[in-house]
Amino acid sequence: MRAKKLNRGVALVGAGMSRFGAFPADTTRDLFVQAFREMRASVDKGLDPRGIEAIYIGNYSSDLFEGQGHTAPLMADWIGLASRPATRVEDACASSGVALRQGILAIASGLYDMVLVGGIEKMTNLPTERVTDTLATAGDVLYEIPAGFTFPGFYAAIATAYMARYGASPESFMKVGLKNHENGALNPKAQFGATIRTMMDRRIASAKAKGRPMPTWEDEMAFLHDDNANPVIAWPMRLFDCSPISDGAAAALLVAEDLADSFSDVPIHIIGSGQASDCALHDRPDLTTIASARLAGEQAYQMAGVRPADIKIAEVHDCFTIAEIVATEDLGFFAPGEGWKAAEEGVTGRGGRRPINSSGGLKSKGHPVGASGIGQVVEIWHQMRGEAGERQLPNSVDLALTHNVGGTGQTCAVHIYERRR
Amino acid sequence: MRAKKLNRGVALVGAGMSRFGAFPADTTRDLFVQAFREMRASVDKGLDPRGIEAIYIGNYSSDLFEGQGHTAPLMADWIGLASRPATRVEDACASSGVALRQGILAIASGLYDMVLVGGIEKMTNLPTERVTDTLATAGDVLYEIPAGFTFPGFYAAIATAYMARYGASPESFMKVGLKNHENGALNPKAQFGATIRTMMDRRIASAKAKGRPMPTWEDEMAFLHDDNANPVIAWPMRLFDCSPISDGAAAALLVAEDLADSFSDVPIHIIGSGQASDCALHDRPDLTTIASARLAGEQAYQMAGVRPADIKIAEVHDCFTIAEIVATEDLGFFAPGEGWKAAEEGVTGRGGRRPINSSGGLKSKGHPVGASGIGQVVEIWHQMRGEAGERQLPNSVDLALTHNVGGTGQTCAVHIYERRR
Repeated sequence: MRAKKLNRGVALVGAGMSRFGAFPADTTRDLFVQAFREMRASVDKGLDPRGIEAIYIGNYSSDLFEGQGHTAPLMADWIGLASRPATRVEDACASSGVALRQGILAIASGLYDMVLVGGIEKMTNLPTERVTDTLATAGDVLYEIPAGFTFPGFYAAIATAYMARYGASPESFMKVGLKNHENGALNPKAQFGATIRTMMDRRIASAKAKGRPMPTWEDEMAFLHDDNANPVIAWPMRLFDCSPISDGAAAALLVAEDLADSFSDVPIHIIGSGQASDCALHDRPDLTTIASARLAGEQAYQMAGVRPADIKIAEVHDCFTIAEIVATEDLGFFAPGEGWKAAEEGVTGRGGRRPINSSGGLKSKGHPVGASGIGQVVEIWHQMRGEAGERQLPNSVDLALTHNVGGTGQTCAVHIYERRR
Repeated sequence: MRAKKLNRGVALVGAGMSRFGAFPADTTRDLFVQAFREMRASVDKGLDPRGIEAIYIGNYSSDLFEGQGHTAPLMADWIGLASRPATRVEDACASSGVALRQGILAIASGLYDMVLVGGIEKMTNLPTERVTDTLATAGDVLYEIPAGFTFPGFYAAIATAYMARYGASPESFMKVGLKNHENGALNPKAQFGATIRTMMDRRIASAKAKGRPMPTWEDEMAFLHDDNANPVIAWPMRLFDCSPISDGAAAALLVAEDLADSFSDVPIHIIGSGQASDCALHDRPDLTTIASARLAGEQAYQMAGVRPADIKIAEVHDCFTIAEIVATEDLGFFAPGEGWKAAEEGVTGRGGRRPINSSGGLKSKGHPVGASGIGQVVEIWHQMRGEAGERQLPNSVDLALTHNVGGTGQTCAVHIYERRR
């Protein structure tokens, strides 16, 4: 297929998010308003919201989580823009990464100069087992779910295949969880906002108070293998390998590139966008890679004219720890079978050569599924503008990437961002 | 707001649909494959499906109807295009009208030359009362549904307000149902495919066989007011004022305008597109008009450079008979308060000055909600190319319009089509 070009460049001039976590008193509307307000405040030269011409909302399943469909015009109304064309985009956990792409295409089409893209999800209304069943609808309900699969099972199958092929171990995955919680501990918006060590200390204290046996944190790996401290969810995925159930919303403002300076002192140009699909997991020849991620990555690199080695920082879709390792290979940061070594060696830490998920990732920041894609954009926005506070990377971030996966990879959206000043 | 222009023209070069109806043995995947095959066969110069670069699927709630989310990549896979970027678009019953618009914007962006747009819904798996509850999630579940509203109630409120303001009567609405069933009786894809007279004859025969009293068809209006023959659903909306519960799928192929001749002998150019939103019904100052439809119509007319009087044929969103009357006013075909008179006088019939819903409309053709928007496109495609068989309009159709509403008008998408040879 010939290389395609957008008819118009697009820049990011604002981004914001609600806290991610469990918020029983808030609906998705409330959370989206919080995200919108923070986004508005982030626009350097101020934003008159009436200039927003269209709205794209990523949302996996308000239908099943909240009993509310047709969510996009509701969000438009609650931010005071009831008349604007408002479109919900759904591609499971990649919903808002794909909403971002639709916003970009809409501006490139010539029809709009300014588009709001957002993501929302409110998952904690339901008990955990119903959340698991609801998320399973993002698999293939004819061929996979009747066989007993849910998402921890899907990613456990990926992890098992990966271990068998490349020699990784459950410890390799745990390293990802430890790293992402260290990052998330520095993120005031994160659901956990705590290292695994901190969280384990709480579990130890609670067990002690109840007179229950619990190991102490002496050898972190022994501890993480303890079935009480870190129970198996679907082997080899344990509790601290799995992203949480979360509520949250995120919002980002896109404008035609030629207008960026009217809004922002430091606009972020979106120079690459890729989106691809794949069959459901049961029908794939290889479980150790996600074909849609490879393809979406290639599209984004090609459009941007950059190589994986050029990217300074990436937010990737770590719904499970194994997913981050596979992502770093699919995106070309590491060769196939080398991602787990990079994770073990600390290459992907904030101080490493290839920082991944400085926000804490879905693992620690939280994973309100429809909001996660734009949540990644919020981190990129802060890091590229030097506004990431305690978790700011030491080196200047002029090129960044986001990678947002839906389901087991039936969808993937990849975007590449450039700071030019 | 200044008039906006698309960076590239877009043409329709193929369209097809499954039958609409109740198909217990078929999933949405099966129905979509049927629609895709018919679409493919409709491309005059043949279609190699591998040329399709992206897919947009309108779908209201496979989540709630079938327990299947993340439907877009599944549809891509089942037509043999598993890797293509596949995006589900949801705006309630306007989902596939909005999917059409995303396909247009995607081509105008320069990124794609050929895009498949489709719509799917499988509603008959659930019992009727659960379908009603599921559709109610397209209202406002915080402010409207707890007050007892479902969709027949919403449109009954619109009908009551309309009658009070303009002097229309339930007979005015019945005229719409009678007309649309007459059209649908000529449509082999229609769910009912029968006139109301035919359907009433069946009811009479059945009642007679069971020894139950039932009026005969002497005065059709008296008959339509009989509570056994035509029960009240939500006054003044009776059974024959309401569109049915349906399964179905539809598909259309879009290409960049400059490529249209490579695919089609008679391409249909999409020269106008509008989309707008509104608050939920409970918050509106006026129930007798749908603001999003007026606005989307204005946008589409402005882009196309045509006036309402220029349009030769329109498919409008008659989920209830009152909705068709309001639509014909919102689109500027008739002045406010004049639509019901036009319906009573036969102006909107196939032989009238302003034919509306020659397909039978949602009322008779069926309303698989996410598929209805592209279902309208299929009718326009056939009528404009002179391929509508028994229901072909007598005069040449060079300009046509589709109007697709989501919910009670929180979303509306309007498109205008031109045949140039």
